[in-house]
Amino acid sequence: MVKQVATEDFLTDIFATMPPFNNGEVWLAGAGPGRIGMLTLECIYAIKHANHIVYDALINQQILSWASPDTQLVFAGKRGGVKSIQQDDITDHLIAHAQQGKKILRLKGGDPVTFARGGEEALKLNDANIPFRILPGITAGIGGLAAAGIPLTQRESNVNVMFLTGHALTGDVPHQLDWQAISKAADVMVWYMAVKHFPQIAENLLGAGRDPQDAVAFVSHASLPNQQLHMTQLQHAADISLQIAPPAIIAIGPIVTLQPILQKNFLNW
Amino acid sequence: MVKQVATEDFLTDIFATMPPFNNGEVWLAGAGPGRIGMLTLECIYAIKHANHIVYDALINQQILSWASPDTQLVFAGKRGGVKSIQQDDITDHLIAHAQQGKKILRLKGGDPVTFARGGEEALKLNDANIPFRILPGITAGIGGLAAAGIPLTQRESNVNVMFLTGHALTGDVPHQLDWQAISKAADVMVWYMAVKHFPQIAENLLGAGRDPQDAVAFVSHASLPNQQLHMTQLQHAADISLQIAPPAIIAIGPIVTLQPILQKNFLNW
Repeated sequence: MVKQVATEDFLTDIFATMPPFNNGEVWLAGAGPGRIGMLTLECIYAIKHANHIVYDALINQQILSWASPDTQLVFAGKRGGVKSIQQDDITDHLIAHAQQGKKILRLKGGDPVTFARGGEEALKLNDANIPFRILPGITAGIGGLAAAGIPLTQRESNVNVMFLTGHALTGDVPHQLDWQAISKAADVMVWYMAVKHFPQIAENLLGAGRDPQDAVAFVSHASLPNQQLHMTQLQHAADISLQIAPPAIIAIGPIVTLQPILQKNFLNW
Repeated sequence: MVKQVATEDFLTDIFATMPPFNNGEVWLAGAGPGRIGMLTLECIYAIKHANHIVYDALINQQILSWASPDTQLVFAGKRGGVKSIQQDDITDHLIAHAQQGKKILRLKGGDPVTFARGGEEALKLNDANIPFRILPGITAGIGGLAAAGIPLTQRESNVNVMFLTGHALTGDVPHQLDWQAISKAADVMVWYMAVKHFPQIAENLLGAGRDPQDAVAFVSHASLPNQQLHMTQLQHAADISLQIAPPAIIAIGPIVTLQPILQKNFLNW
């Protein structure tokens, strides 16, 4: 039995301490990897107070039902790998509607400034003199891995962790990566948007001397009921990656080996 | 004017979908960098349903007032740099009280498994057959920087970011860091618990060839009303670090130079 807790005025009281959502502002917010419980209070506040929401494919769409009935909902994600709206168009859309005095929430999966173009959008809003906020979200590289029972750091095994994107602005694996250096430097790597290019990424890492037996985890739909975890070694990871349905977060390194151990008493959400 | 929004049953309805907090369980949760709005729904749920809370110094202590009046609150942080309770004692405490059937919330600042020993605690709970959950929080390296107007990634400037701890288990700068490799590999570095050792860290990075003009930001009390931001270049950062009051998060790299640009239209919370 869940204990009954009075929540009646709790949110109202907290919301009253938050800054007003003014006309003409754009709030760039992260909705986390998908599990409702990982949403932040200020993201919920923003959903309830915006009157124009531009959202990505990777958010949990259930949360859009919390918007006011008169709030305009604009989908700005990809469908079947095809962008329904281009990045420049999104920014133009945000600017135009902010200039019309809307209260705009730009809602992204994960964290808005962790490989999610929030920084780029902020720069363009800034250039256009649009006031904006950044509302952090739980990033999949931390919260999505935790949902699969993989803790990001463990001081006995890793004193650093590197987050990387597998997808440059061009759509290719980022050309500027120094594979020798990252292979040597990063105790743990967490790759975003890297499923498609993972055969090439694995080949580059192995070619640069990364241990073929390094543990690799693919977590698809992290934190959601359809979450899937595949574990392998780097030397076999290219093959496995062909079976992985994006979106997935990929972890490489000793923390992955903790998963089967912790699984004994780890409670799934 | 903030629009009035009905919040009465909102939290109650969401809480009803969350797993029960059972006797004998330990929930390892992150409370974010400090701003109340960055708390997650599941962290609030845990605070309201635990009957034994073991908390660190870096949480916003206001949130403890949300616990039931009969919940036992145990401080497990440091006071004036002196640990009031040792790490082994904390784990023993968690295990002993879980075995007594308590509902224990282990509440940490930031994220519980990002340089916060949550992974180590999970392993020991697991060894003792104590069921546990991990509830991610917003880590200071992402949300604390965003609160200061520094977006973590920007694809034109960085396709990776490395998080590092400046404080090994021994209390020293981690000896296993390959300074040449990290200096070369990491487009952006975010250092945790590194203020005290920063003169040595800066010297090592410069000695390994990192650009002396690389931008550095120190964000103290990130996301809180007493937040302070100091910006400098790597070649001057050792001197500046002597003036920084921990807790602080430290960012090195091109994203730091975006802060003064974005400041024009960036709204502080």
